[in-house]
Amino acid sequence: MAIELVYSHGFHAVGVDQVISAAGVSKTTFYKHFESRDDLLVAAIKTRDEWEMAGFSAAMERLSGDDPKSKLLAIFDVLDLWFNSPDFHGCQFINAAAEFPNPHDPVHAVAAEHKRKNRTMFRDLAVAAGVPDAESFADQFTALVEGTLVMRQVHGRNDAARVIKPAAEALLTQSCAGDPVAKIESNLETT
Amino acid sequence: MAIELVYSHGFHAVGVDQVISAAGVSKTTFYKHFESRDDLLVAAIKTRDEWEMAGFSAAMERLSGDDPKSKLLAIFDVLDLWFNSPDFHGCQFINAAAEFPNPHDPVHAVAAEHKRKNRTMFRDLAVAAGVPDAESFADQFTALVEGTLVMRQVHGRNDAARVIKPAAEALLTQSCAGDPVAKIESNLETT
Repeated sequence: MAIELVYSHGFHAVGVDQVISAAGVSKTTFYKHFESRDDLLVAAIKTRDEWEMAGFSAAMERLSGDDPKSKLLAIFDVLDLWFNSPDFHGCQFINAAAEFPNPHDPVHAVAAEHKRKNRTMFRDLAVAAGVPDAESFADQFTALVEGTLVMRQVHGRNDAARVIKPAAEALLTQSCAGDPVAKIESNLETT
Repeated sequence: MAIELVYSHGFHAVGVDQVISAAGVSKTTFYKHFESRDDLLVAAIKTRDEWEMAGFSAAMERLSGDDPKSKLLAIFDVLDLWFNSPDFHGCQFINAAAEFPNPHDPVHAVAAEHKRKNRTMFRDLAVAAGVPDAESFADQFTALVEGTLVMRQVHGRNDAARVIKPAAEALLTQSCAGDPVAKIESNLETT
């Protein structure tokens, strides 16, 4: 409940009283569990982190099977479904970091941790796919995924995941093969 | 003043009283210019929009000269300078859209307008560079730029612009040349 309220309305817009009322508990019970409102927000983000990490990974596998390359690219199919569902209220982690811009703020810190976990998942899939420089690939692939989120939630582009996916496919092909432009050039030289 | 306060501290954190005090005007004067706090935020975003559009474009040109391809890629050099300056407090437009997630909110709407103007600038440079499908390129290039911002302000990667730039270069080369993977394949078939 608390997590849904926070997710749908944003952090600053949701008061502790509203959360307490939605949870149907007394103020005493609430403050037994959470020392402050920020504690509640940290808990809400951690819950969503667990939910998204498990949910996205399962959805990617269901759409793509076991192949690590297909699984990587399937993130865009999962995003496309999410972007066009009535439940979409933006990426909670980008929003949390925006509302708490100081990196040392505990709310910002858990949001950043989730984002870095996501990058690690992409890095591990890239290693499994045999990408030679999996770290650089992970940075660039993560940037495309993050940019797709911004295209949806700021630019208002419902088609963001579909139009960005081909760039992710090209990046993956290139990263597996080395630099294709150099290959074209070397092919042209030898013919 | 108001714009700097809002930029450095975030929207919800800055109260009207604080802005009025920083501006050194009376409440009556303030409310003669702005009907509400949201009006002030819309004005602050419009001012930053003008400042960023002019400032970024000039900086890109100064770093790269007139060539549209070099100018496109120079956005990453400008971002790198900004990311590593003490003035960096994140992208105000992503933050505004996060704090006002409803697309019909006037604050969200002006932030989205700025983002779409940026994409149009990239599209026009791509047309000038002779990219055949400048619209698709603009979507994908914009996603890389947005993702670079998120890598910096959420993941905490000060090196984001430097590590993402090679992906933007590859995207541009590819988009100018058509699909290089298809080219490699056609080269292999004809040899």
